[in-house]
This record gives sequence, C-alpha cells and structure tokens, in this order.
Amino acid sequence: MSRTIIASATREIIMGFDQPFCVIGERINPTGRKKLAAEMVAGNFETVIKDALEQVAAGATMLDINAGVTAVDPNATEPDLLVKTLQIVQDLVDVPLSIDSSVTAAIEAGLKVAKGRPLVNSVTGEDEKLEAILPLIKKYDVPVVAISNDETGISEDPDVRFAVAKKIVERAADYGIKPYDIVVDPLVMPIGAMGTAGLQVFKLVRRLREELGVNTTCGLSNVSFGLPHRHGINAAFIPMVIASGMTSAIMNPCRPQEMEMVRAANVLNSTDANCYNWIMKYRDHTPSAAADAASAGNTTVAASAGGRRRGGRAARMGS
Amino acid sequence: MSRTIIASATREIIMGFDQPFCVIGERINPTGRKKLAAEMVAGNFETVIKDALEQVAAGATMLDINAGVTAVDPNATEPDLLVKTLQIVQDLVDVPLSIDSSVTAAIEAGLKVAKGRPLVNSVTGEDEKLEAILPLIKKYDVPVVAISNDETGISEDPDVRFAVAKKIVERAADYGIKPYDIVVDPLVMPIGAMGTAGLQVFKLVRRLREELGVNTTCGLSNVSFGLPHRHGINAAFIPMVIASGMTSAIMNPCRPQEMEMVRAANVLNSTDANCYNWIMKYRDHTPSAAADAASAGNTTVAASAGGRRRGGRAARMGS
Repeated sequence: MSRTIIASATREIIMGFDQPFCVIGERINPTGRKKLAAEMVAGNFETVIKDALEQVAAGATMLDINAGVTAVDPNATEPDLLVKTLQIVQDLVDVPLSIDSSVTAAIEAGLKVAKGRPLVNSVTGEDEKLEAILPLIKKYDVPVVAISNDETGISEDPDVRFAVAKKIVERAADYGIKPYDIVVDPLVMPIGAMGTAGLQVFKLVRRLREELGVNTTCGLSNVSFGLPHRHGINAAFIPMVIASGMTSAIMNPCRPQEMEMVRAANVLNSTDANCYNWIMKYRDHTPSAAADAASAGNTTVAASAGGRRRGGRAARMGS
Repeated sequence: MSRTIIASATREIIMGFDQPFCVIGERINPTGRKKLAAEMVAGNFETVIKDALEQVAAGATMLDINAGVTAVDPNATEPDLLVKTLQIVQDLVDVPLSIDSSVTAAIEAGLKVAKGRPLVNSVTGEDEKLEAILPLIKKYDVPVVAISNDETGISEDPDVRFAVAKKIVERAADYGIKPYDIVVDPLVMPIGAMGTAGLQVFKLVRRLREELGVNTTCGLSNVSFGLPHRHGINAAFIPMVIASGMTSAIMNPCRPQEMEMVRAANVLNSTDANCYNWIMKYRDHTPSAAADAASAGNTTVAASAGGRRRGGRAARMGS
C-alpha cells in the first residue's frame, strides 16, 4: 500500500489507494494568465491570495504553486518569485503545497523556505532532469511528481510512457528514494485528438499501481482540450480515473461539477467512510423544482423495484 | 467480444464492450407508482405514452416495459396488461424493448407479440425460474437479463453472486443459449448501507467480462438509495461502471446529469467515434455566466501548462 505523505507546517495529508482523492488546486499558475503574470512580476499578490483562499474553500486537498512568469531569464527571476509566492500562500492557508517549476534553482529555493513536507512538481525521465532533481528530493526528503516523458518527448505509445515511469522509479531508488515518494503522471492526451486517450490512461494507471506500486496524478483538464462543454468531459473523467486507481489530480477545485464528481467517486470508492463527507455536504441539497418533479416518480420506482424484484434485501439495507 | 443484439421491428442495437453504453429506460414501470398503476388497470395509457416519448427523446437506447400492477392475481391480470403496454409502445417508438416481468406467463405473452428481438428481464439463479424462463429464451431466440440471486436471496458476498451468474450462464448453455445472449445483473447494493458496494460491483463487472465474457447491466439508482442528492452519486457511478466494463444500465434517461455522464463516458471509453455524438449534443453549450468566469482563466492555464511543461505535444494535438 503506497502512502505518500505531504504536509504543511500544521496539516498532513496522505495520498494513497485507500485515501480520498487528492485534489491539487492548479490555479496559482501564471502560465497563460497574462494578468496574473504581470501582477506577480509587479509584486502584487492579490490574485494569488484570492485564488489560494477560493481553492481551499472549494475543497482543495493541497495547492500547486507555480511562478513561471516566462521572463527572459527564468533562472534569475523565478527562484525569488516562487519563494515569495510560497511564503505568502503558506502563511495564508494550512493545506500542503506543491512546488511547481521547470527551473531547478527555483525548486531548491522553494524547498529551503517551504514548511512541512511539500510535493515537488516535477521531474521527467530526461537524464539531465533526473540528475538535477533527484538529489534535491533525497536531500530534502520530499515526494516528487514524475512525468512520463523523456528526451524523445511524449510517446503516444502507453507502453513507452510506462517504461519511462519505471526508469524514473528505478533511478530514484538509486538515490534511496522510495516508490511511495514518487507520484507518476502518466500524461493525459486530448481525447478529441486521440480517441484512445482515456483507455490508455485507465490501463496505465492500473499498471502503475499494480506493477510499480506508485501513486498517480495528472493534469486533468488536458483530456477535454478542444472539445465543447469541457467540464462535462472532465467531470466524467474523474470517476473513471478514480475507478482505475488514480489517487490525485492537478485540477481546478473551483468547478462545482468536477468537485461533486470527486466527492461522489470517493463515496463509491470506499474512501468516504459512512458517506460522512457526502452527507455533510449535500444533506440540505435541493435540486431544482423541475428536476425534482421529473425524478420523483422514478426514484420511488427504483427503490421499490429493488425491493420487489430482488428479494427486498437491497431496499431493507438502504432504509 | 460479446455482442448482444436487441431489435425492434425497424431498429437493431448492439450491446457490447466496444459499443456505446446502452441506456435502458426504466420509467414504464408501475411498481411504486400508484397513479400509473391505477391508470394502466383502467386502460389509460397516457402516462405510458408520455414516458415512452420522453425517454426516447432524452436518449434512451431501449425501453424497459413492466406492467406489474401488483394485482391480487398477477398471473391472471399481468399477461394481458403487459401485451397491451408492449403493443402501444412498439407502435409508438422504434427503439427495442425489454419485457420486464416476474410472471412467466406475462413474459411468454409478451414474447408472442413483441416485434424484432426483445430483451427478457429477467431470470434469476433459482432453479424454478431457470426451468421456466430458459426454454422461452431458447424458443424465441432472445437475450435475457440474469440476476445474480437464487433461492437463498441476494448474497452480500460478491464471490457468491459471481457463482450464481456462472451457474445461470452454464445452465443456459445446456439449453443451447450462448453467453452473448446473457446480460448479467451483478446486483448493486446501496452504498449508504454497504460501504464496499461500489468496489464490489467494479470488481464483479470486471470478472464477469473477463471470465464469463458476458455483457452486464444493473438497476443503477439502487446505489444511492437513502443518501441525499442521489443524482450526484448516480452520475459518478455511471463513468465508474463503464470504466469497469459494464455495458448497460436500467436507469432514468430523463435525468440530464446522468445522461451527460453517459455521453462523456462514451467519449472517454472510445465508443463515441471522433467524439461525434458529444460534439453534436454540446457544440452550442453555454455554461452559466458565473461558471464561465470562474473557469476561463484556468482553462487557459491547463492547456498552456500542457504545452509548456510537457513538451507541447498535447497542446499541438488538441489544437
């Protein structure tokens, strides 16, 4: 049973097969958000603060912190900006953080100031990257996201992506890093461009769990890239990856439809004991009047049919 | 590859692992619907007609037809009423039908008048039931739903439920009925009463598919019995059973949240080629203004992050 421990100064969370799905809030990331990037460069962290509070209020298990403002020289600017962002967020909220950067110096600078046991996001299968990041992971005794691509890019062949993940786990072992401190991202392709993208991920997650014993994550919304009503696709993808054994995702916790599916999948995956969190969240839920009218008759049918046709066990157990 | 063919006079559908999830509309069922039962007994089929049209318009693949009005002597009343209901519905809509009764005489009467190749719902593992129903299945060359309970009731042990299903498949083989004409219902318990109900079903469906090669179904909404906001649980359950290999469900197609998850899971399960049905359904989808504002920044982040951090392949593929 692989258990990845991630902690802030005051709160520890466990990522694992028998744990609630870990929602890693993705919003504090200036990539593609020009306004946020400009604010951060100018030393204005209002949006960062707002995004941190909103994501935690929406139910994020932890927050990803990225300060990649795409400056001319990220090595010079990103470490300080990432440190500043991390410090502001960890003084503001008590959830654990993920230090997200493609700049090694920024990751190390972040590790020096982060309280608790942050997650590092990320290492890849590229040798140069492995040699830069893994010693930091060992030195600071923290878990790391391992992305299944290498010098050759992202393979469309899931077996190659599995092999890259395996290589990272083995290389990490050489440094004395345990599999439970590796969180593999098997890479999610857009289903609109590759029709087997979903099936690939479901199979990969199963293999990663069974053969390597690692926790897994993904950039969830990539799957719906280019399609209309992306949130519907994202919402269905969540229960499917959870049923396949995925244990976390980098996603937007401020989307109610997606978060509802996380909560429901936790119930169905036996990681919400006695449905406690579901009941607390939805005990006063009132569907729209129209939806209620449409379903009232049917709800009765389903329950009663269970009782009549199927021996009454199900109905009695539920009452 | 197990392919169950079900047909009306004019339309054939295939239930199978590589096919879109088969939504069996459950609403034409007077069990627990006193008003509908009274109408049907009085020869008033207005609600039946309304339910048939609404379910087909909502996207039902086929319709379940149940005329169990719980009369004093179902053997005397149910055959005629089921025949009448079947005839009205098959003259009204062109989707295939499921003949749903616990009364053998009603099933046989239904088989005599049903056009095409209806599904029979159902047989159980009870010897008396097997001996009554299987000869009809063979005689009329139709597929049948096999419910995993027997004389001892519904076992809480999934291994026992699997054994009952296996017994039915084997007994059917004695009659010359192929596994592809058996659609097993592994029985879904309410998750609020049995916390492992979801995990049991996911595992059972996988075994039924891999070991017996059969298609599967379930009374979907049983899983949420007794919980608040049942539709949220039902909606998440659909992608999870589809990811586990379930190929149909008896459910309410008039619930938009559940049907959206069926459509999205078909995309992600590679049974909606080129996302055609998804795009046709949602190409003009406009989320509420509030939800849109909350997500706009993030959508960009996700796509761009995929492009930046992960080599650009995903973003390019999706564009």
